[in-house]
Amino acid sequence: MSAQAARARAPQAPTLLRETVGSITVLTLNRPAARNSLSEGLIAELHGALDEIRDDNNVRGVVIAANGPAFSAGHDMKELTARRSDADRGRAYFAQIMNACSAMMQAVVNLPKPVVAAVPGIATAAGCQLVASCDLAVASETATFATPGVDIGLFCSTPMVALSRNVPRKQAMEMLLTGEPITAVAAQNIGLINRVVPAGTERDAAIALAQKVALKSAYTVKLGKEAFYRQAEMSLAEAYRYAAEVMTENMMARDAEEGIGAFLEKRDPKWQDK
Amino acid sequence: MSAQAARARAPQAPTLLRETVGSITVLTLNRPAARNSLSEGLIAELHGALDEIRDDNNVRGVVIAANGPAFSAGHDMKELTARRSDADRGRAYFAQIMNACSAMMQAVVNLPKPVVAAVPGIATAAGCQLVASCDLAVASETATFATPGVDIGLFCSTPMVALSRNVPRKQAMEMLLTGEPITAVAAQNIGLINRVVPAGTERDAAIALAQKVALKSAYTVKLGKEAFYRQAEMSLAEAYRYAAEVMTENMMARDAEEGIGAFLEKRDPKWQDK
Amino acid sequence: MSAQAARARAPQAPTLLRETVGSITVLTLNRPAARNSLSEGLIAELHGALDEIRDDNNVRGVVIAANGPAFSAGHDMKELTARRSDADRGRAYFAQIMNACSAMMQAVVNLPKPVVAAVPGIATAAGCQLVASCDLAVASETATFATPGVDIGLFCSTPMVALSRNVPRKQAMEMLLTGEPITAVAAQNIGLINRVVPAGTERDAAIALAQKVALKSAYTVKLGKEAFYRQAEMSLAEAYRYAAEVMTENMMARDAEEGIGAFLEKRDPKWQDK
Repeated sequence: MSAQAARARAPQAPTLLRETVGSITVLTLNRPAARNSLSEGLIAELHGALDEIRDDNNVRGVVIAANGPAFSAGHDMKELTARRSDADRGRAYFAQIMNACSAMMQAVVNLPKPVVAAVPGIATAAGCQLVASCDLAVASETATFATPGVDIGLFCSTPMVALSRNVPRKQAMEMLLTGEPITAVAAQNIGLINRVVPAGTERDAAIALAQKVALKSAYTVKLGKEAFYRQAEMSLAEAYRYAAEVMTENMMARDAEEGIGAFLEKRDPKWQDK
Repeated sequence: MSAQAARARAPQAPTLLRETVGSITVLTLNRPAARNSLSEGLIAELHGALDEIRDDNNVRGVVIAANGPAFSAGHDMKELTARRSDADRGRAYFAQIMNACSAMMQAVVNLPKPVVAAVPGIATAAGCQLVASCDLAVASETATFATPGVDIGLFCSTPMVALSRNVPRKQAMEMLLTGEPITAVAAQNIGLINRVVPAGTERDAAIALAQKVALKSAYTVKLGKEAFYRQAEMSLAEAYRYAAEVMTENMMARDAEEGIGAFLEKRDPKWQDK
Repeated sequence: MSAQAARARAPQAPTLLRETVGSITVLTLNRPAARNSLSEGLIAELHGALDEIRDDNNVRGVVIAANGPAFSAGHDMKELTARRSDADRGRAYFAQIMNACSAMMQAVVNLPKPVVAAVPGIATAAGCQLVASCDLAVASETATFATPGVDIGLFCSTPMVALSRNVPRKQAMEMLLTGEPITAVAAQNIGLINRVVPAGTERDAAIALAQKVALKSAYTVKLGKEAFYRQAEMSLAEAYRYAAEVMTENMMARDAEEGIGAFLEKRDPKWQDK
């Protein structure tokens, strides 16, 4: 079914699908006819879903996937352009959208559970930013990545916050200044994604990767993920002071006692996620 | 014509050549007999040229190229050594040169236009730093890169500021501690340069890359390049706050309105660079 | 001789061996039966050895090697677990060990001489951190690297401080969240190590690499190594201000005068290490 056909047949289809696969929640961007562009509604739905997942102990990991050939084309340009007729020429609305999108991206980073992107096809601008914001990313061999805002006069400034924290400076700059796409293999080589898989298997591969992490203690993963992004912004001495405290707290937790005990006794641990 | 012959025939040849290729200014290091070492004069000429280009609306990009087999051998050791007979054994002069060179390198970073290095051969010490300081870099397959100051008792401390912001820590440390050169392919693999091209084509390839960026809105490129280097020094939350403001300002600009309009109407945009 | 046999025959064998090879000190982790885990004693011995080496002018470089098939399995879980019977359930002891280990790792970074890891086999958790903390690292083609704390409920929080300053974010996160090992070649590709060599040659290759650096002026190496890690935590403008001062000081030193003179006179320099 083509994207156009999908739109015609299901005009009221939800823009974000939620499925449960074992202990993993799969959030699927579902605006294929709009190349899964991040409309105001879709940004809000994604952020809302992440907020609910945050406190749901049954969910041990998240996969962000996409319906249709594209992962996401970034912001919805039609929606933004429509607000140029506002009294302030759209300024307040644009600021609101950029802040809402940045807050959603940071909610991915701050979610105390692993988030894995499953990228079937092209991921551009804020779509590429969403991949960069996930903890891990799996892409189809046919996927491509670009930050082409420069081609329409709108530099990918918020996407580059995430991009430049994943890939080396000159490679980030080339993507940002030329707007040209890179292949999945190139994206893996520069550190933007973890794995390239055969086309059509990226969703299952991302779920499998999330499930692998879901077998660990949720307490330990939560503690570690939070510490990872916090220490990344510290000096070496500060980072060690902080991380040594985190390790000590972690040692006192029930799951470390159980996990270390199981390791020494050569048996499987039983997590209580605390 | 050999470097020696060039020197003999043109003793007063300018140390920096300026050419215009379309909207690109090509600055060519022209001290081939001195392996394009960065003398006090050449540093000043480079900085002066960048200052003039900054405010020249006809220039939409810069290529830094080199005449002769070497890109640049770094500081001019003869010139520095001559000042050891100063009353202070050269200290004031050395400080002046190091600060002048650092200021020139930062002028490359702060220039509101893309700067692309075209590297025909060996780039060492401050020559390697100049490549690392450019936004983008294209090198001949025969080019090599090194920070060999350690071999002459003078650690490449200022070059490492640029180098270590481009390449991973252990690879930077190996170059700095051993002084050994790496190939162009190795330089690309660790993120120091963007592209390796057949020998003799690096100048044209760098110009072509700069011209690609020159087709974008100069306003957008200026806004984006400045934001790139500023956000790189911020925490994630600060960077998003800042970048969301930049995006909003960008949305209000004429070229974003035109570019997004052209995109939605499937036509080519006409930039006014504002 | 197997690790078990070694233990049986030499129950009082020192846990850290010190050898001198030319001007290089080789520190060999010598708890093969315990996979060279970093017991309280071994951490203290390593830190003590580094402190002594710091002020020993005869030592111009350090190699950290390991006896037995493993490089190091990280913390000694038996030793930690034994303290769960303390009145505070081990909290004070755990904090002490984590701080002692972090201080030892920072002593590697702060040692004013090059430190090269020689990795024969698996390096996990704090063992992987020790590799990441060294300035340079050489590994056997059979070596593997992992941060598997998450598998026993104890996230590799202190190891990630060193790991995440060496390798890209998504690759670090994959190691930390999945606990899975990566090969030596993969470790080289992501920047964790410098070189992969045939099995059994990693110790000699690491010594050869350290000896190469040992031929330089010890003053210059000390100045440069310290400046490298300091400027890495500064903004670009601060880093240039600082590095330009370092360069000026370096120019005034005897070994720079000698080294530059020798370079201009095309002879070998004679270092006085000042």
